[in-house]
Parts: sequence; C-alpha cells; structure tokens
Amino acid sequence: MTPNEHLYPIILAGGVGSRLWPRSRKTAPKQFLDLTGNRRSMLQEAFDRMTPLVPPEQIFVITNREYVDAVREQLPEIPARNIVGEPAARGSAAAIGLGAIHLLRRDPQAVMAVLTADHLITRPDVLRQTLRAAAELAQTGELITLGIEPGYPETGYGYIEMGETLGSYQGVTARRVVRFREKPDLATAEAFVAAGNFVWNSGMFIWRADVIMAQFSRHMPRLHHALKHLQPALGGPEETAAFDAYWTPLPGNVTIDYGVMEKAKRVAVFPVDMGWHDIGSWAALLEVLPKDANGNVVQARHLDHDSNNILAFSKNRLIATIGLQDMIVVDTDDVVLVMPADRAQDVKKIIRTLRENGLDHYLE
Amino acid sequence: MTPNEHLYPIILAGGVGSRLWPRSRKTAPKQFLDLTGNRRSMLQEAFDRMTPLVPPEQIFVITNREYVDAVREQLPEIPARNIVGEPAARGSAAAIGLGAIHLLRRDPQAVMAVLTADHLITRPDVLRQTLRAAAELAQTGELITLGIEPGYPETGYGYIEMGETLGSYQGVTARRVVRFREKPDLATAEAFVAAGNFVWNSGMFIWRADVIMAQFSRHMPRLHHALKHLQPALGGPEETAAFDAYWTPLPGNVTIDYGVMEKAKRVAVFPVDMGWHDIGSWAALLEVLPKDANGNVVQARHLDHDSNNILAFSKNRLIATIGLQDMIVVDTDDVVLVMPADRAQDVKKIIRTLRENGLDHYLE
Repeated sequence: MTPNEHLYPIILAGGVGSRLWPRSRKTAPKQFLDLTGNRRSMLQEAFDRMTPLVPPEQIFVITNREYVDAVREQLPEIPARNIVGEPAARGSAAAIGLGAIHLLRRDPQAVMAVLTADHLITRPDVLRQTLRAAAELAQTGELITLGIEPGYPETGYGYIEMGETLGSYQGVTARRVVRFREKPDLATAEAFVAAGNFVWNSGMFIWRADVIMAQFSRHMPRLHHALKHLQPALGGPEETAAFDAYWTPLPGNVTIDYGVMEKAKRVAVFPVDMGWHDIGSWAALLEVLPKDANGNVVQARHLDHDSNNILAFSKNRLIATIGLQDMIVVDTDDVVLVMPADRAQDVKKIIRTLRENGLDHYLE
Repeated sequence: MTPNEHLYPIILAGGVGSRLWPRSRKTAPKQFLDLTGNRRSMLQEAFDRMTPLVPPEQIFVITNREYVDAVREQLPEIPARNIVGEPAARGSAAAIGLGAIHLLRRDPQAVMAVLTADHLITRPDVLRQTLRAAAELAQTGELITLGIEPGYPETGYGYIEMGETLGSYQGVTARRVVRFREKPDLATAEAFVAAGNFVWNSGMFIWRADVIMAQFSRHMPRLHHALKHLQPALGGPEETAAFDAYWTPLPGNVTIDYGVMEKAKRVAVFPVDMGWHDIGSWAALLEVLPKDANGNVVQARHLDHDSNNILAFSKNRLIATIGLQDMIVVDTDDVVLVMPADRAQDVKKIIRTLRENGLDHYLE
C-alpha cells in the first residue's frame, strides 16, 4: 500500500471571483471558466493536475450547492458522491470540515490535500511530488501548508514565517512554521522578502482527516460540534434537516488560517517552486498568460494598431484597439470593461456601485 | 415674392463616415445616426435647421440610391420626389449637378443651398440668416461658399483665402474669394490663421441652379453633357437607361471644389460664425458634445471610477470604466473599439486592415 492510496485531493471551488467581473459571475464563477485560453476551466485544470497522482475516485470537490451540477458537467470522471455541495458558504474552515467528514466515512486513514481552483500552476509535477512528500509527513500528525517563494514584496497575500528544518521527505524539505502573518504593508513585505525565511501562504494544506477534526475540536468547537452531528446524516434522509440545524447557523466566513492554522502547534511548511500564479484579477492574467508578437494577451477576435501589454478578452465580438498601453479590455454579453492594468483591483468598486444602484443583474 | 420662394436647400447625405466606425456602417452611415444624443439623426438635424426658412416641399436630399428608403423614413415631411438617389457615388460635383437638374425642372429661377449632414451647428439661426443673404447675392450670378472663422490651425480642412469686401447683404458681409487652398501642413495652417483673411471651407455653397450648370458646361463638360441627357429622362421610363448610359461612366470622385470652385472666376464667401463643428471622428464628438459632471461624454449606460474626458458610446451594453483619461470606448453589436482620443484618425487603419483580411462584414 503506497501513501497515495489514502491521499484525497479536495478541490475548493466555491468562490465567485468578483475581481474577474464581468467575465466571472455568480452564475458562472471563474473556476468554471477557461480564463487561460486552453479550453479547460480552472477547475478542470485543478483536476487534471491530480489525475497522475490518484484515480478520479479519490478526488473530491467542495462547492456551493448551486454549482454542483456545473461541477458534474465539467468533471464527469469524478463520482457524483465526491462532489459536495454546501447549502451556504460558511468560510474555508467549514468547507474543509465538510470534506473531512465525507472522507472519514469512507477511509478513516484518509489524508486530505486541500487544493484551490483559482491558481495557475506551470509545474504541476513539482506540486505532485510535494503532495507525496507532505502525505508522508502528514502521517505523523503534522498540519502541513504549502508555501510559495516570494518573487517580490506582494502586499495582497498572507505570509508564513519559517523556522527550523524538520527533515527531507521524498527529497523535499519541510520546515517548522513559526507564525502566520496577515497581508502586510509594503515595508513589512519588503522586510519579509529580505529576511529570506518567509513564503507566501498558498492556501493549500495537507493533513490527516482525523487530525484536522481533532484541531477543530480544540480550536473551533462549534464547527466540530456541527460536523459531528452532520457526519451520520450525510447522504441519508435526515441530511437536509441536519444542515438546517447545524450548518446554517454557523458563522459566515471563518478561514482555516484564522480558525486553526494560526493557533495550532504542529504546523509544517513545504516551500514549493511550482510556478504558482494567482489569477485573481485581470492584471494577474495579463501578467501571467502568454503574450502574442505585440506583447498582448489576446483571447478574442482582435485587431490592433500600436498597442502593447494589453489584455483583450471577448467571446463574441471583435475588439479593435489603437495605441493602448498596459490596458485591459473585457467584453461580455452585457458589459464592456475598460481600465488600466494597475487599476484592476478597483473592479470591486464597480461591483459595489452596481449593488448600491440595484444593478445586481450585471453580477449574475 | 421673397427670395426664399426660390431657395432650395439640398442636403448631401451620401457619405459613409468611416472614421465613425464601428457605429457608422455602410448599412447605417453616420448621417442616419443620432450621434449627438438628442434623438434626431444628423440628417434630421440638417432638415430641422431649414424648416424655419423654407417649407419642406423646397428641401431636397441627394443620397445613394440604397439609402433612399432610409431618408424617406427619417424625413416623412419631405415629398418623395425630393429625395434623389444616385445609382452610384460620382463625387460631390456630380451629386450637386443631379440636384441642379431636378431643381431646374421645377423652377428655372431656383437657388440651390448645398448643405452637409455631417456637422453640428449650434447657431442655426446664423446659418439661416446667412443663407438669406447669400440667396440675395446669388441672384447676381455669384458662386457663394460659406467660410468658418478658424479657431485654431486645423490641418484637416481646406482653407479659403478672402480678398476685398463685396458688400453687405441683409446685414451679412460677403468677400471675394482669392483662392481655395487644400488641407495645409501645420506651419502653413498657422500662417493662415495668423494672416486673418483665411477661413475654413465648410462645404456649403449657394448659387443659382442655372449658374452652376453654366459652370459645369465650362469646367466639367463631361458632367454637363451627362446632366443634359439625364434631365429630360428624370422620373420617366427612360431614367434607368439614361443613368446607365451617362451617369455610370462618369469619373469616380470629383469634388465641387476641384471641379468648379478652384477654377471659377466669380466666387464669393460669407464668413459665418454659426457654431460649426465637424463631427467626422470620435475625437471630434468627444470635443463637441456636452460633458457630464466628470467631464465625460456618455451615450451609454455607464459606470465609472476616476475617468476624465472619455467618450463612452453603446446602445445596449453597460460600459464600465476605471481610471481612463482622454479615451474613446465605442461598443456596437459586433465590435468594441478602444483608443486614445488623439488616435481617432487611425480608425481608417483598422478599416483598411479589415478589408485586407476579408473581414468586410464588420464594415457593413
């Protein structure tokens, strides 16, 4: 029996990706979209990364209940019972807990690999090798997180301060986590990068399902209590009632970082150089995706004179551009968005204004 | 009998307006569009400017044959026989000649006022007053052109050099035309503006119909010959055959400026301060149309943060913009165009590229 027999990748795919509006919508969030232009959605790419490691039967997806059908359609290889729909989003800790109780019903020795569907990973073989290593270390009861070598002082990510080396697992080095650090200001981020013992928090975790449950019991007793009552009801006639009674009242948005990781004692980190790219914004896509001969990222029928470093995105219309620099043009059925790349975070302001003006249909 | 009883405004409405692509198309050229946001098309505005001066029965439109139905629809007040369709465009001289022979069949004393449909005129009362004055002067056999006081050294217009004062007609001063000057380079344009006796050529002309026919006879004998053969066939069973025989073989694009005005002897000009604005390009629209509180020209459902001096144009979609400066965003059913205002002339390059790539359907 290899460690992989107990390794279960759990892909979290419940987010909305609002900074990728107007392409990413409530009814079609970014993980279901082909944003990278290779005809596979972010979710499908997350799945594809795991199939060389484990059979599809071991891959789970946790998503919002309203997206369950979309996941089934995009991942027909996964058994329907592996696609878990939350009746309402209750933060990443609850989502992971829900995954844990599903796994434990099936395999008491289950090791969870909590994965995201909203990153581009250009060296998936390195991720897989690290997951193998982490699965081995996880047997000892460690909570493991994957850290990304910071290429620059990004202020939009959390950081992990690394301490002593714990050892080498399958050729990959694990280190003790000293502390989780929230998104820093620029000066702090620069200090982190200069110090050399800080990595970005990737949001990917590996642990035994029974170990994370014990951690919930200690640090998030209310969630643990809910999960304990949900577990026996899963898939049975009492499931809906159990969710109504125990899931719905949970607090709204507790992350696993805040709820468990920052408080837990035995936390390890594998620094991984897997070509990890957040594509949480249009500017990130412009930075990450391959450029054409003119230095532009084009996923559209596009005609241009003299533009450079622009992103042109449309499914149906011709985008014609003249003399643009560092600019983003996104066209959808009902919205055209135009902004400089360095204003890509302000899509959130547009969304807020839409909500304030009762124009929510542009978000759906 | 007032001079107005013989005054016939002839609106030339045959152009395509390619620099206003993608809104202006072969099938819906700019003169049929409401580009100024006041629910009347350019053509309808040109018509509205004349109705305080003459009854609709005296207003003519010369257009391409394929636009005759569109003109009828937009100007139901005009008798159908006043809407003249050219079977093919043969330049402004030929279009004016066609207008002249229509008029002469009806009124041998007809005075033509050749008007354009692609300008914004904010003081139409001044135009009307000048047309009255010009109609009076035209009785003497003068060819009259309207000149626009140049506000700056524009290199995109032709200029008219003015000489001696001819006199005052209904309070408006006419001057002798010394010379027509083609679109100048910047240094020349600056010299023109500094000299003080140059005006822009507005493309509006007033003359007796029989006088312009005599000018054709002298300076454009081939056109005159064609018109003489077309005149008796107009509206009769031989009309199509006559157009095939005489119109179709005419050279393609001879302007009235080149064909007649630059060669004629008795040419007068009325300098007119009528709030004349060329809206031949998106940049011109941005400059001319009223701005909203943020300094933007918006003809769309528009949501913005921090943009200034942009033009946002869409019939159907929401345009969302962030942090744009001096930018033009035009959305249509099949094309989105984005460019800085100072590149608006390069729309022609996009159109050329479309043609070269067999993408003509984006022009139709």
